[in-house]
Amino acid sequence: MKNIFVIGVGLIGGSFALDIKKQNSECTIFGIDKNDDHLKEALQLGIIDEKAEFEDLARAELVIIAIPVDAALEVLPEVLDRVSDEAVVFDAGSTKEDICFKVKHHSKRRNFLAAHPIAGTEYSGPSAALLGLYKDKTNIICEVEETAFKLQEKVLRLFSDLGMRIRYMNPKAHDKHIAYVSHLSHISSFMLGKTVIEKEKNERDIFDMAGSGFESTVRLAKSSPAMWTPIFKQNKTNVIETLEEYINNLKHFKQLMVDGDFEAVYNEMETTNHIKEILNGIN
Amino acid sequence: MKNIFVIGVGLIGGSFALDIKKQNSECTIFGIDKNDDHLKEALQLGIIDEKAEFEDLARAELVIIAIPVDAALEVLPEVLDRVSDEAVVFDAGSTKEDICFKVKHHSKRRNFLAAHPIAGTEYSGPSAALLGLYKDKTNIICEVEETAFKLQEKVLRLFSDLGMRIRYMNPKAHDKHIAYVSHLSHISSFMLGKTVIEKEKNERDIFDMAGSGFESTVRLAKSSPAMWTPIFKQNKTNVIETLEEYINNLKHFKQLMVDGDFEAVYNEMETTNHIKEILNGIN
Repeated sequence: MKNIFVIGVGLIGGSFALDIKKQNSECTIFGIDKNDDHLKEALQLGIIDEKAEFEDLARAELVIIAIPVDAALEVLPEVLDRVSDEAVVFDAGSTKEDICFKVKHHSKRRNFLAAHPIAGTEYSGPSAALLGLYKDKTNIICEVEETAFKLQEKVLRLFSDLGMRIRYMNPKAHDKHIAYVSHLSHISSFMLGKTVIEKEKNERDIFDMAGSGFESTVRLAKSSPAMWTPIFKQNKTNVIETLEEYINNLKHFKQLMVDGDFEAVYNEMETTNHIKEILNGIN
Repeated sequence: MKNIFVIGVGLIGGSFALDIKKQNSECTIFGIDKNDDHLKEALQLGIIDEKAEFEDLARAELVIIAIPVDAALEVLPEVLDRVSDEAVVFDAGSTKEDICFKVKHHSKRRNFLAAHPIAGTEYSGPSAALLGLYKDKTNIICEVEETAFKLQEKVLRLFSDLGMRIRYMNPKAHDKHIAYVSHLSHISSFMLGKTVIEKEKNERDIFDMAGSGFESTVRLAKSSPAMWTPIFKQNKTNVIETLEEYINNLKHFKQLMVDGDFEAVYNEMETTNHIKEILNGIN
């Protein structure tokens, strides 16, 4: 692949650009971004080779859409309209039902692969892009059968070259499960941060008393609201369901404490402890 | 100091032993632990030099109590009964009100320093002990004025040699603030783990879809229930208060989602985002 277009040159798109360039130094990486400062930064950092416009997409062999999920819904049909029959387009959004539905009847549906690389950090923008971000990470592909066979093959080879393991799911199942293992964590983290900040008006106190455990649980509260708001909006039903279950579990734990039933408190923790073995599998 | 006794040779006590031995290779570290396997392991790992019993405490110059906070309440008065007038005893528990109250009128109160080193990992036992665990960590000292001046000086020099920064608080304020920046994080993490495990009976799915963000928020759910249950019991009132506020914040967030008010959802995250700057202060 020679002409690769990255729409959204932030953490996700920028990291793809860096990895692909390393794999294939012959290719040209074109960056498209509505934020001109990000484009300049991406050029300076060597993440992209050239700035580009939507008009240039006819030349693309591969297009990566790595922008907030609401913007992706608007952009994808236009990208498909513009690319050639041989081009393949994939997205990297954290919700898959809406985007698959959006292009269900698009004449170029077979040029699109719906992907969700489970990778990232709490930072954003071109300077957050990391070489090797996708190594050993899971990439969830939805509705693979809707993508043209040759184009599937091309992108899957790329993912494999980047060291990713592939899992296939339908968009509905993806959005349901990801609400539990990703979206809920972000809300729990933001609300934990909020609870502590509200209480500790004197921030110096937080800083002085907080240890690495606190830091770990609130790390995700540094994440970009511009990225996460549309995710919660698109996955509203599933996220609300996970939040209800989480709140009920917290209320139950609190009630055990109010009742002074510390044997049950112990058991609550003990039965969750085996998450150790599950987590050992991550990274 | 020549004869140093560590009661509880796990993560916290073991790490003190390693650091102190490195600072002062002449000293002998005696280990006391009700778990004989832990004592053997600590000997094998070179964390302690010798096993010891309560009867030996008369020889101690320094005693470190690093056991669950309920056990510490029982053990501390007996330790004070046994040590010489020149010995200093400090604990490392995550609650300070009960232990200070317990020995308020003890004839050897001035031989005790109430401490809470904000350090640790989610692991436990002698094998979890780490050299350098306390470097650049905060150590909260309560009721410093109740400890004999010369003994204060001795222990504070030790903490300083280990690279810790000292903060002085009263036990009531300590227990209130620490509920926010430590105890609540543990509950949020355990309940997050529980919520996901309950839903995802097929653990393979969790493993495959979970990324580093999820891992970070549930890391503390690996913590020891035997250590944490007595902490929650002793700090019941404060912890219940933090839990109520956290649950209310989560319910509010959920309601904004139910109402479809995603501008407010955005603002919730945006106002918490400045936790970045606060966290930058933590390591």
